[in-house]
Formats: sequence, C-alpha cells, structure tokens
Amino acid sequence: MTVLVVGSVALDDVETPFGHVEGVLGGAGSFFSLSASLHTPVRLVGVVGSDFPQRHVALFRSRGVDCAGLERVAGGKTFHWAGRYEYDLNVAHTLDTQLNVFGDFAPRLPEHFRDSEYVYLANITPRLQLDVLDQVRRPRFVGLDSMNFWIGNPETRADLARAISRVDAVFFNDAEVRQYTEKYNLFEAARVILDQGPSVVLIKKGEHGAVAVSGDGTFVAAALPLETVKDPTGAGDSFAGGFMGHLAQTGDTSWAGVKRALAFGSVTASFAVEDFSVDRLLTVTRQEMAERYEVLRQCTAFEALAEPAHAGA
Amino acid sequence: MTVLVVGSVALDDVETPFGHVEGVLGGAGSFFSLSASLHTPVRLVGVVGSDFPQRHVALFRSRGVDCAGLERVAGGKTFHWAGRYEYDLNVAHTLDTQLNVFGDFAPRLPEHFRDSEYVYLANITPRLQLDVLDQVRRPRFVGLDSMNFWIGNPETRADLARAISRVDAVFFNDAEVRQYTEKYNLFEAARVILDQGPSVVLIKKGEHGAVAVSGDGTFVAAALPLETVKDPTGAGDSFAGGFMGHLAQTGDTSWAGVKRALAFGSVTASFAVEDFSVDRLLTVTRQEMAERYEVLRQCTAFEALAEPAHAGA
Repeated sequence: MTVLVVGSVALDDVETPFGHVEGVLGGAGSFFSLSASLHTPVRLVGVVGSDFPQRHVALFRSRGVDCAGLERVAGGKTFHWAGRYEYDLNVAHTLDTQLNVFGDFAPRLPEHFRDSEYVYLANITPRLQLDVLDQVRRPRFVGLDSMNFWIGNPETRADLARAISRVDAVFFNDAEVRQYTEKYNLFEAARVILDQGPSVVLIKKGEHGAVAVSGDGTFVAAALPLETVKDPTGAGDSFAGGFMGHLAQTGDTSWAGVKRALAFGSVTASFAVEDFSVDRLLTVTRQEMAERYEVLRQCTAFEALAEPAHAGA
Repeated sequence: MTVLVVGSVALDDVETPFGHVEGVLGGAGSFFSLSASLHTPVRLVGVVGSDFPQRHVALFRSRGVDCAGLERVAGGKTFHWAGRYEYDLNVAHTLDTQLNVFGDFAPRLPEHFRDSEYVYLANITPRLQLDVLDQVRRPRFVGLDSMNFWIGNPETRADLARAISRVDAVFFNDAEVRQYTEKYNLFEAARVILDQGPSVVLIKKGEHGAVAVSGDGTFVAAALPLETVKDPTGAGDSFAGGFMGHLAQTGDTSWAGVKRALAFGSVTASFAVEDFSVDRLLTVTRQEMAERYEVLRQCTAFEALAEPAHAGA
C-alpha cells in the first residue's frame, strides 16, 4: 500500500560540530517521503517555490515518491530553515525560519491521492491537517505530528484536538506530550491522549529512542547505539517514515505489527542522522536495514526467567 | 554469593512534588544494600554517627545485611543530605550536604568481609575505593560508581583512573561518562573506558534507562514504564544493587547473565522510586520482581523479520 504525506519541503542550512551545509533538501515532507519510500510507494503533498531545484523532484520520483501533489508556486521562494546544533544533538537552535510559499500552503490532494489508506500529517497548522483529512476518502491508519507553537495557542489547539480525535497515531516528543496534556508523567499523559481517540501514542525521545503507549500495552523502542551522528535534522520524520512505510507495506496494524514498524522507525532514523540532509537515506540498502533491525533486536533482548523448580520456592 | 558494598549511609531530607520527608534513611550504601539484599546476602561497609537510629541497623540485619563493617562514631553525626526535585525528577537540587563522620571515613573491612567475590564501590573518594580494593583478597566482579567532583579534580581523577583499571564494571551516568572521557558520543566514550580495563560500562540515563557497553556487545536496558514516581533518590544505587545482587546470586557473569542482571537493575530501581527513602524496597516481593522483569521483557521484545522467501528477492 502507498502512504500519503503532507508536510514541508524545504531548503535548509544546517551547522553541527561535524560540518556545515547550505541550501540542502530538508523539511518534514522530504525526510518522511525518502524514509517511507525505503519500504513502500509514497505520495507527497507539499509546496515549493521556483527556486526549488528540479533535481530534487527527480530524486523524489526516482525513489518511488509520487510528486503529483507537490505544488510549485511560480515566482515564490521555498520554505527555508537554518539551524545549528551543539554537541548535544538533541537540541536544535533555530537561526532563521522563512515560511515563504509554505506560509500560504493550502494542500489540495490530486484525485488519485484521495483513496490513500495510510496517511501522515506532518507538522503543519492543525487547520490544514483537518483539511487534508477531509479530502481523504477512507483512511485506514493516520499518523499526526505537531509542535509546541500549535499546542500553546488556544485557537490552533482546538483544531489540533479535533485532528487528534480523528487519527490513529500521535507522534509527539516528550515535551509536546506534557504540554498538550498538562501531565508530567508520560504514561499518564499518553492515556489522556488515548482517551481522545488515537489507538497509539508515539513519544519520541531523540537519542533515547521512543515509547509507544496503546491499549494493547507499552513498547520501548530503543535508539540504535550509534557512534556516528552528524546531523539529527529530520530524525523524527524519518522515524515516522520508517514506521508508516513499514505499516503500509505489511498492512499489519496489530500490536505486533506496530512494534515491528516502530523498530523500523528507529532503524530508519538511525540512518538518517548519520549524514547531513537526506544523504544517508539515499545510500542505505534493504540489506543494511534488515541487519540493523536485527542489531536492535539483539541490543534489547534478554532471557526470560527460568520457572522456579518448586512452586513453593 | 554475598556482595560487599562500601558507601554512604545517610539521613536525608527530601522534597519532591509528591511529598516531603525529613531525617529518613538514605545514602548510596543503604539503597544498594537493601536492593541487593532482595537477591543475595549483603555486607555493608560504612560509617554513621551516634544519632543514627538503631532501628535502621536492625532493619539492615533483618534484610540479610551484615553490618559488621558499619562503624558507629561515638559523639559523631551521620552524613546528612537535603535535596529537592521539581517535576523533572531527573535533576536533584542539593539544598544541604553535611559530610559529618563520612568526611573522615576510613573503611576497614572486618576479616570475614575480605573474601568477598562481588564488590560494589559506591561513590566515595577514589583513594578510599583503592583502599577497599587492597583489602579484598580475590574479588571476582567489582563495580564502581563515582561523580563529577572526583572526575574534575586532577588529583582525585588520577586515583579514579587507577581504581577504574582494577574494576569490572563502571556505573556512570551519561554526563560522567562524557566528562571522564572528554568524548561526547556515549559509545565512543564507553570504548575509551573499556580500553582502561573494565569489561563493561553501565551508562545510567535516569528515566531513559541504562545502556551497557562491553566487548560482547551493547545492551539497552529500558526503564520500566511507571506512572508512579515519588522520589528518585537512590535510583542509581538501587539499579546497581539489583544488578550486583543478581550477578552475585547467580554467579553468571557471561554477557547473557549481565543482561539479565541489568534487567533486574531496572526492575529494582523501578520499585525504589515508587516511594520515599527505601520504603518501597521493604515491601516488594520476589513475585512482584519476577512479574516486573517479565513486563520489561514484554515492553521491549519485538519479532524477528521473516527470512525472505527467495534469497535473490
């Protein structure tokens, strides 16, 4: 099955202790698309300006990303983000944000996108997330991301709550979960969100991995132990792309399937952060992904306790 | 097998968003002893003043903790720590520290303690950790904790490096690992420490669990998903107590045994933080521990990938 994503497509400047790049492909929609496309075909809905290199569109297409929903605004400029990371790669310091054409984004789904069963609403205004949901006929599994800015504003928060009530999976980092629910304990907070409709809450914790809470249980998806992390930009959306891509590929939305998909989310994100922009996502092979999936399993598996020899012991 | 611990025994004042206690049993030696004693007999080496309630000594003894090495200084005052936690329970704000008799602590092992095979050197001056190692005849597995204060001072740091070269397991939090090695990446940093002698580096990450790095591989020990966390004081030493206690109980220091012991470390710490001081460690049963061990396994296990049907696929 294909997976539909709506989100930003950007040109980024990124500086980390390990290097500096300018004008590179970025944005949640880009990271998600190229991550999910490692698993299954993707449909991308977004907007770019006339400065957006045609080679990026060609790249998307070469990876199985249908760009029929990628609007190009003549004379407009593409969304631009500039950020810097210190050694603590968990914290991005935003140096510049220029919304440009993304500020007037009004996602319109091409007709053949409207039958998408797997949908990911990356971080855009909750009103637009609702608009997209209205355009999809019968979604089977919808994931949603958001950010502190929309959670904190009473008006956008009301839209966000409506959107959350209509999705299956919420992808929040720990701070967003706490802000949205006003609960400090993450597991208590996750239950508040589950009560609003979603079947699973995915709490992203950067280098500490992610935790999924659902009615079926809790799953701790460790982050891969990595010695090379060059640029964490897009890690969360690559995680979501690996997760949604695997889910759409298998169609298995059982709890066991969700856990496997989460492991693939960790695996996919682990490749994304190994190089700048989307570069590593372009070289990773299926074989490498399968190997790292097994590494993750070995890194977290431990033996069950032996049954006591005597029941009364 | 018994496990020997040398460390602080204290009377603490602790304030968290969930309550406030004064003059309660605390200190690394106390948390470790009562955690390890859930698994195996313990030998405690420490020092208290004449103000230390005899009922605490009776408590230790009732839990299988040999207090022959717990010196009582007549007229002296017991080590006192006062701290406060905000909602972010990962960060302790120290309000007061009075070393008192602990400031002149010179650990002397009773003769029958000297044959201990499992030894835990809690956070004390590295010089004293070396002194204790000199008094143990043939230790089989030694764990060591320390803190930023000893790592940062050139003189104590030299002693610490000597102590580290003589132990099997180093229990550091992520900041300590980075400070000691001057490497930001935790896995690169852990290898630096492994090169100095230890067979395993245990990186404690609070609510995010712990990571073990050894020559045999890497193991991510998740923290239990807990909705009730009242007081994180002693979590690290309870983790160490569960780990060392299980290791000493089974005698299995293989990588598989270390992984099981780490899971018990997580389990034991998860009980410790559910109530103030050592209170929850006094009520937890073996059955509860075994159940939570299995919960941790379920929370982290996921299925292997099916083999591809065709090798060429």
